[in-house]
Amino acid sequence: MTVLDGKKTAQDLKEEIKTTVSEIKKSGQRPPHLAAILVGNDGASLTYVGSKVRSCEYVGFDSTLIRLDESTTEEILLDKIEELNQDDQLDGYIVQLPLPKNIDEEKILLAIDPKKDVDGFHPSNFGRMALEMDSFIPATPYGIMELLERYKIETSGKHCVVVGRSHIVGRPISILMSQKGPAGNATVTVAHSRTQNLTSLTKNADIIVMALGIPEYLTAEMIKEGATIIDVGITRVADENHPKGYVIKGDVAYDEVAAKAAAITPVPGGVGPMTIAMLLKNTLLAFQRKN
Amino acid sequence: MTVLDGKKTAQDLKEEIKTTVSEIKKSGQRPPHLAAILVGNDGASLTYVGSKVRSCEYVGFDSTLIRLDESTTEEILLDKIEELNQDDQLDGYIVQLPLPKNIDEEKILLAIDPKKDVDGFHPSNFGRMALEMDSFIPATPYGIMELLERYKIETSGKHCVVVGRSHIVGRPISILMSQKGPAGNATVTVAHSRTQNLTSLTKNADIIVMALGIPEYLTAEMIKEGATIIDVGITRVADENHPKGYVIKGDVAYDEVAAKAAAITPVPGGVGPMTIAMLLKNTLLAFQRKN
Repeated sequence: MTVLDGKKTAQDLKEEIKTTVSEIKKSGQRPPHLAAILVGNDGASLTYVGSKVRSCEYVGFDSTLIRLDESTTEEILLDKIEELNQDDQLDGYIVQLPLPKNIDEEKILLAIDPKKDVDGFHPSNFGRMALEMDSFIPATPYGIMELLERYKIETSGKHCVVVGRSHIVGRPISILMSQKGPAGNATVTVAHSRTQNLTSLTKNADIIVMALGIPEYLTAEMIKEGATIIDVGITRVADENHPKGYVIKGDVAYDEVAAKAAAITPVPGGVGPMTIAMLLKNTLLAFQRKN
Repeated sequence: MTVLDGKKTAQDLKEEIKTTVSEIKKSGQRPPHLAAILVGNDGASLTYVGSKVRSCEYVGFDSTLIRLDESTTEEILLDKIEELNQDDQLDGYIVQLPLPKNIDEEKILLAIDPKKDVDGFHPSNFGRMALEMDSFIPATPYGIMELLERYKIETSGKHCVVVGRSHIVGRPISILMSQKGPAGNATVTVAHSRTQNLTSLTKNADIIVMALGIPEYLTAEMIKEGATIIDVGITRVADENHPKGYVIKGDVAYDEVAAKAAAITPVPGGVGPMTIAMLLKNTLLAFQRKN
């Protein structure tokens, strides 16, 4: 059984990006530059953004954290976005979600210049991805593709069941794995809350991507021997024995499923660490496409 | 067994659109206006465009056919597109494909204002569709959704197998049927040329969408009793006994499959006639969104 080690793979990727950045600097160019906008003081958002900024520093990117007050209006945020769109010294930026309730997230998303949309959430990028043009692929599905490719998991002609149809994970990964190309050419089924008899699907799947958000939903009896399991779930489950008062659980009952699977991503340390690495990769791509 | 009569349904739709247009005119507004650009003299393209123009006239739309010489350069075509983008009296337009080889189709597509892209081929529209925002849905998948809805085919929780992963049929219909909404909420599998053991998939499907382009590929032994069959194939097959020298065949061996299916689209007279009706519908939508 192979553990698909996202932590290690993300670290490998970061080292590769670091090497590329040091070559860019040696050539006399400025390094790639990522900005993040954070509105308000949400604890989890602060943690995520902080981690993204530290990763930028690690690989040698320039990074800018723009913190705006909880009371920021939609108009002020749109002005800031227009400023970033116009800034030639900036390759890409993200707007950390969720935004305060008075701000229309769709309006903000649509204001981002697709060429700087390194989160890959803009419909123009989604459409370009689905139509097999150059685009920015959202970090989580992009990270899954990278993991599958680096661990040489055979996908061509295999049956993959994606459980979940979200805009940022289930839908894009189902499209990517069914397209031509590395980690592609799979026969892909998208299952979701309305799916009847999910087990009859997962039991026949060579690859299962769980992106449902229900802790330990996938059990050993739902999979076939030798399947590859990708677990995108990260749910905080209360646990009074843990110093933090909670533990992070994936969508997969790890121990029993791992015993039957050929390959599996752990939680934490699987898909999660890949997402920041892919954000850096997208920023590097944005830099390279501009230059 | 129900024949999903695309010819009749398309006619119903046209009558509905005609009624709406006559109300628009009564209110003193100009009617919706569709333009089509045709470059060169391809026989099939001339037929398609002619049929679109006649349908516009039938429902009371204004229509403009712009014919450009086979020798038209990319630059001239791009200028024409910019002119149409700026024209306030025009709601939507299409550029008939294929284009002459010296013209980059992707470049042309990207130049079309997404708000006038009534073919729904621009990546911005594709992305908006996939992300469940207002968009223009390409005519063929839109027509299939309309047929399923009008014939009240239950899709929620049903297993649908889409055979074909093209940008204009297989991919979009797989997304639409798996989203929430009318004719949606299906569990959808996308199969394609690399799929292994297609029959094991189609035999378990409640709904099969054939968009492969191989005449009479789907046979009775590949389906389960009572399935719904949507046939998108239209291939010209040589037939010396036919006055035209060919007949049009779908991807489905109609007679034997119809005998086992609960519902089926014929070829011709199924999905085909729906596409022009949906183009008219998109043009009406473009008009309504502007006004």
